[in-house]
Amino acid sequence: MSFQLESYLRNRTAQVADALNRLVPAAAHPPVPICEAMRYSLFAGGKRIRPILTLATVETLDGDWTSALPIACAIEMIHTYSLIHDDLPAMDNDDFRRGKPTNHKVYGDAMAILAGDALLTHAFQVLSETDMPGREKDLLAIIREIAMASGVSGMIGGQVADIQAEGKPTDEETLLFIHRHKTGDLLTASVRVGAIFAGASERELLLLTKYAESLGLAFQIKDDILDVTGDQEKTGKTVGADAALGKMTFPAVYGLEESKKQLAGLTDDALDALTQLNRETIILRSIADYLLNRES
Amino acid sequence: MSFQLESYLRNRTAQVADALNRLVPAAAHPPVPICEAMRYSLFAGGKRIRPILTLATVETLDGDWTSALPIACAIEMIHTYSLIHDDLPAMDNDDFRRGKPTNHKVYGDAMAILAGDALLTHAFQVLSETDMPGREKDLLAIIREIAMASGVSGMIGGQVADIQAEGKPTDEETLLFIHRHKTGDLLTASVRVGAIFAGASERELLLLTKYAESLGLAFQIKDDILDVTGDQEKTGKTVGADAALGKMTFPAVYGLEESKKQLAGLTDDALDALTQLNRETIILRSIADYLLNRES
Repeated sequence: MSFQLESYLRNRTAQVADALNRLVPAAAHPPVPICEAMRYSLFAGGKRIRPILTLATVETLDGDWTSALPIACAIEMIHTYSLIHDDLPAMDNDDFRRGKPTNHKVYGDAMAILAGDALLTHAFQVLSETDMPGREKDLLAIIREIAMASGVSGMIGGQVADIQAEGKPTDEETLLFIHRHKTGDLLTASVRVGAIFAGASERELLLLTKYAESLGLAFQIKDDILDVTGDQEKTGKTVGADAALGKMTFPAVYGLEESKKQLAGLTDDALDALTQLNRETIILRSIADYLLNRES
Repeated sequence: MSFQLESYLRNRTAQVADALNRLVPAAAHPPVPICEAMRYSLFAGGKRIRPILTLATVETLDGDWTSALPIACAIEMIHTYSLIHDDLPAMDNDDFRRGKPTNHKVYGDAMAILAGDALLTHAFQVLSETDMPGREKDLLAIIREIAMASGVSGMIGGQVADIQAEGKPTDEETLLFIHRHKTGDLLTASVRVGAIFAGASERELLLLTKYAESLGLAFQIKDDILDVTGDQEKTGKTVGADAALGKMTFPAVYGLEESKKQLAGLTDDALDALTQLNRETIILRSIADYLLNRES
């Protein structure tokens, strides 16, 4: 296997950044500060996991991944808006993210709310403008996937449950609900829309969904573990921040060792699904390994 | 002319409320409060001007207006989200709207931010699910119209300019920019997507756009005038609220008499465009008259 994940990630991250730069212009007419605020968070050093999952899925199914860049970027815009709004004083009240001041610390609360709104709106504009000639039905299905994963029955529902659970006794059902929806659904959608874009069969879509769901939950458990054991230098987050907020996390509910076991089990599930795909899945496999072993 | 605007508006308002009730369910699984918060503002007594404009445009072009209800409702969801976010303490800090406590006064700031986000997201989900078999390209064009009208070059851009202009010396160019984008663009989109839905010709789309742009600006001037001369009982708003905030308004820039003249002129422009349409335009005409003469 000559596949080099590091250079793959470096290349795709750069491609996503280029596309975002094209798709979210530096300055509209008068309301310049809103574009600045949108771009500040878009280019604040995110790992681009979601858009890369989309592109990797397209490539795994032999689709043209460069044509899927607008879809991948739309998902990154939605992810970014959710971070901006989560960081607001009315929500998690975070002053720093990835070592940089959060959006509202730089542009003020009003502009941060609007920058989030604008990124969410722009994501759907970009999606509606994606060039898929003769495949408009599939594009509408992609828009629907992304909207559902981001809405009340997806990411927003998870965030609401997270807020409501703060300071309450931990329980497994609520914890799973929060993790599945708050982070899991948009990660799963990232893979699923890549599959739809590439014209996956029903069976392929099912297996890739299984991969993504396991990966999404594993990803969040890893985040929870890093919050306990992580190196602040590397994560850019305060160690123990979740615990301090009384947040429901895997280590809090299951303990650290059991959380690590579950993480390993879910990663196996994700890799099993790939094996059944009967495709060259080295990219998706390497991404799963990378997310399991990351230190930030 | 036997057309009765009052009964028309009563009927369409009820139809829009019914459709919204179907499209935004009362309770998802666990995150119940978010659905409550969404529905609280959706059913807080709005005039439904935007969705009715969509339906009226479809009907004027002999389209099937009942099939356009999801599109009309999506626009109302976006309008409602914008009000929820505008009312937040970080923005206009309004405690009341239409005589009722604003969303964040009832559900708290965090839930109000999320309810707005959820309505915006849900609007695009509903749009992507609209049944327009064989006309997927037109549906994508409709989604694009609505996203553009709501985003940085539309409603959000207008809101940003509005915030930046507060307390600054009034100037005509900025005033027009704010009004055209903050309220005008979504009103115009309401008419345009109705036209696209009904399969309007290029010429019809152009004339209806002219109608909507004139109407949209007239609508905002009327709002500004009502803020000065309105009856608080009827408008449900504090008289002079805009002036107190140092907001840029037509009466502040042009004086009350000149503002009324401009309102009348724009209404004429809107009606002229309808005359050139060579259709039965009594509904759209009556709506323009109604918006010009309303007291709330």
